Amino acid sequence: MDECTPVLNTGLRGIEVASSRICDVRGKEGKLIYRGYSIEELAQKASFEETCFLLLYERLPQKEELSKFNQSLKAKRRVPENLFSFLKSLPRDMNPMDVLQMTTPLLIQTDANAGKDGMENTLYSAENLIAGLATITAAWDRIRNDKEPIAPDSNLDHAANFLYMLNGEKPDRETGHFFDVSLVLHAEHSFNASTFTARQVASTKAHIYASISAAMGSLSGALHGGANVRVMEMLKQILSIDKIDEYINNILDEGGLIMGLGHAVYQTDDPRAKIIAPMSRRMGELSGNTLWYDLSRELEIRGKKAFMERKQREIFCNVDFYSASLFYAMGIATDLFTPLFAISRVSGWTAHVIEEQFAMAAPKTSLYRPGAAYVGDYCGPDECTYSEIDER
Amino acid sequence: MDECTPVLNTGLRGIEVASSRICDVRGKEGKLIYRGYSIEELAQKASFEETCFLLLYERLPQKEELSKFNQSLKAKRRVPENLFSFLKSLPRDMNPMDVLQMTTPLLIQTDANAGKDGMENTLYSAENLIAGLATITAAWDRIRNDKEPIAPDSNLDHAANFLYMLNGEKPDRETGHFFDVSLVLHAEHSFNASTFTARQVASTKAHIYASISAAMGSLSGALHGGANVRVMEMLKQILSIDKIDEYINNILDEGGLIMGLGHAVYQTDDPRAKIIAPMSRRMGELSGNTLWYDLSRELEIRGKKAFMERKQREIFCNVDFYSASLFYAMGIATDLFTPLFAISRVSGWTAHVIEEQFAMAAPKTSLYRPGAAYVGDYCGPDECTYSEIDER
Repeated sequence: MDECTPVLNTGLRGIEVASSRICDVRGKEGKLIYRGYSIEELAQKASFEETCFLLLYERLPQKEELSKFNQSLKAKRRVPENLFSFLKSLPRDMNPMDVLQMTTPLLIQTDANAGKDGMENTLYSAENLIAGLATITAAWDRIRNDKEPIAPDSNLDHAANFLYMLNGEKPDRETGHFFDVSLVLHAEHSFNASTFTARQVASTKAHIYASISAAMGSLSGALHGGANVRVMEMLKQILSIDKIDEYINNILDEGGLIMGLGHAVYQTDDPRAKIIAPMSRRMGELSGNTLWYDLSRELEIRGKKAFMERKQREIFCNVDFYSASLFYAMGIATDLFTPLFAISRVSGWTAHVIEEQFAMAAPKTSLYRPGAAYVGDYCGPDECTYSEIDER
Repeated sequence: MDECTPVLNTGLRGIEVASSRICDVRGKEGKLIYRGYSIEELAQKASFEETCFLLLYERLPQKEELSKFNQSLKAKRRVPENLFSFLKSLPRDMNPMDVLQMTTPLLIQTDANAGKDGMENTLYSAENLIAGLATITAAWDRIRNDKEPIAPDSNLDHAANFLYMLNGEKPDRETGHFFDVSLVLHAEHSFNASTFTARQVASTKAHIYASISAAMGSLSGALHGGANVRVMEMLKQILSIDKIDEYINNILDEGGLIMGLGHAVYQTDDPRAKIIAPMSRRMGELSGNTLWYDLSRELEIRGKKAFMERKQREIFCNVDFYSASLFYAMGIATDLFTPLFAISRVSGWTAHVIEEQFAMAAPKTSLYRPGAAYVGDYCGPDECTYSEIDER
């Protein structure tokens, strides 16, 4: 393994650990591909449900298949009754991501074949998770605000129904559409940290509920799912366009980063950011307040310029940069941004669990079980000798 | 990365992904080392609490430190009240590992600084997890059997108190001691799948409760934590010594494996198996039934011999081979074997989370975020063109 020493303590950055047919992220070109289709085409033409079908079943559905799939998701929106009483027993200030991680395995109760072997059972569970986690997220937001959860409305599609369960009002057509597109955009992104967690847990042959719950934990980390929350905090801190330059200068003087600018993989603007930006502007107009979009836009322009001047290199928008102002204009609480990410990404996670357990493109040696270099030097090169407690 | 292509689809087997000061597994020699100390010394001389201290604080405690640590764990045995009502709301047949994964984040409620940055806060949380998860495991076993949970007894050490909370009776001295040693033996084993999951989640800066809950999910997989369950099922299937040869022949004819023989890392008998075997024998005597030990012993001898004759290579006992009969003789339900593993291993998991977040022996590039090789060939080398739904 001498040739491979860079693997040590690099977080596996750039190391291809598996082959996958699900998603291609082409950082240089700024391309994101789900199962052969570009994110631009999917965002423009496919609903979230259709995108889920594509991710899970490896192709776009025919008309009847999509209609059946939609029905199946709708039937799975209802969650077990003890889930609500559990949510009501929790402290109101509990982090929504902790709530999602805890409650994910509760959905087993509405899945008679949960944990049983077989791809068909696991696909059923995947649909149960996609449908159920949206219901839990909306219910928790209401319960923590002392409101009763709202039953799903089967006349609405997944995106509009979520907003309805969250707010108690059906969204207007444009808002529903923007939210649907957001779900499509966040659905999948190859082996990011949470997806890797989901696959890793699935590789032990744990069931899909255990895998998705674990992925929730991974996504909850500040380095992963929380980025658009911090974009919003930044915008609130800046608060007016004439403060932008000062903000940029201060942050760059301190060697800090402008939240939402820069990405580990893309070396150009994130293709999702380009789709979200105009939605954020329009959503600002609809909500009667374009401040957050305007701030974002100016911050992008001036931030990029400042970065070039100071560091002589380009920096680019990532997906979180405009999703913050988009979600905020929709009236969504800031600490729900990461859960929104989760209820979309669960489609990608479940597709990866299924690939890991049933459809590996190339043979894979059972579970992920890496090595570690032991560097404990407690007693030099020798083993330590246990000394009696009075002699320490 | 051309030199490193073996990483692809090998489950990272043999790839050292990080440096660590916690544990060394020397497969060839059959050595297991926790922070410099051999497992043989620790099993003989250290309590589980002392082992936890060693894992978390990197050295054996002085007398007063150990006494303080014991008190701290005892104070953390009580779990939030809503946890019991939640457990009572669950279907009685829910898998105990699912229950542990779900309830782990509930312990946040008794940890005022949960999720706050800093090593000291996280060490507090680690102790809260080590103490609390034992209480949850015992409580769930009682509740699913329609019994009331039993409050912890602060006169008892961790091992004896667990058995007391489980059975409602204080264990005799020997049983308590054997259980304590089992906890020491299962506490840590370097980067196995669940530990890797815990570290991976922690690497996103998710809090330790999210990390440990995720590790529970990983351990629940049949390829990971369930091995001694399957050893027990095998012993029950064989049921008498004169059926052993037939069993071995049938299983080897089918190309199958004898559960509990063979290990991914050890190329000799697992050092833990050698410590557990005599405890299993003695526990059989104490319980008035040595059948399961006797069966295991004969199966080991004849299985090893048959393996050598048929495959011309040695095979060795792993930790699960004798822990099955040991736990069974203690009267523990088979489906609690993996949770017992969990309430011990949480000590190792938490030590790894702390190392990942605060004490990396070498600098590490933030979170685990590997690459994947995209092999989707849905539309040849080109992107697919989205066709309208009626035209598919």
